[in-house]
Amino acid sequence: MTFALHPQLAKDTTLVGDLPLCRLLLSKDGNYPWFILVPRLVDTTEFHQLTDEQQAQYLIESNAVSLFLKENIGADKINIAALGNMVPQLHIHHVARFKDDIAWPNPIWGFTAATIRADAVHTQLINDVKSSLQSLLIN
Amino acid sequence: MTFALHPQLAKDTTLVGDLPLCRLLLSKDGNYPWFILVPRLVDTTEFHQLTDEQQAQYLIESNAVSLFLKENIGADKINIAALGNMVPQLHIHHVARFKDDIAWPNPIWGFTAATIRADAVHTQLINDVKSSLQSLLIN
Repeated sequence: MTFALHPQLAKDTTLVGDLPLCRLLLSKDGNYPWFILVPRLVDTTEFHQLTDEQQAQYLIESNAVSLFLKENIGADKINIAALGNMVPQLHIHHVARFKDDIAWPNPIWGFTAATIRADAVHTQLINDVKSSLQSLLIN
Repeated sequence: MTFALHPQLAKDTTLVGDLPLCRLLLSKDGNYPWFILVPRLVDTTEFHQLTDEQQAQYLIESNAVSLFLKENIGADKINIAALGNMVPQLHIHHVARFKDDIAWPNPIWGFTAATIRADAVHTQLINDVKSSLQSLLIN
């Protein structure tokens, strides 16, 4: 079997690119800069199923996304979560939170309907994260 | 400065014990087996602030809690999250989710009021996790 992105994740996000372990996605929800890391592994639903090497590589990729959210986006707080109750394929949310965002200080899930980000802003965000993670991106 | 547990975390949880990096807490909320790992560090609010060595140690402790939730508790899904919008001290939730729990498949935060777990069940859960993590506990 080869890795295939869960159709719900494909529907809700835009592809940024592939890092050595994970596919990097940007949520279409315009309420928050919200990236999702999906390890390109088959039949993996829980983080502890990753090997030590995969976990170490995940941390490199997760830290790079977090630094982007903090230093480039200026997040007040980063929310990181592996939930997967609805979409079992392991995927880890990385969300930039601001003290004036619509859901603050609540978690974002189920709080409010998604909004659409302007195309130009969405494209700029993708270009910015690609630039920040350039040394890690493999395609 | 020395580490001091945030008073809100102290109020909402029972101390299980200390692992090499983190303090392990059990939420008093009886709706879910819900453990919290708090790195015993000062002025740390984001996971990417940890050194490589601290991150590697965190993974050892997180994986041990996850294995307990999966293999001993029989969780259908593990939810792991570092949020911290209300309590800034870095703390990472590890929650055993079941397909028949009150919030399923929603995230647990803000979904329903906490309930009280029977004292005997609460004590048993603490004893069970201590037994499972015995080789890691330092006190």
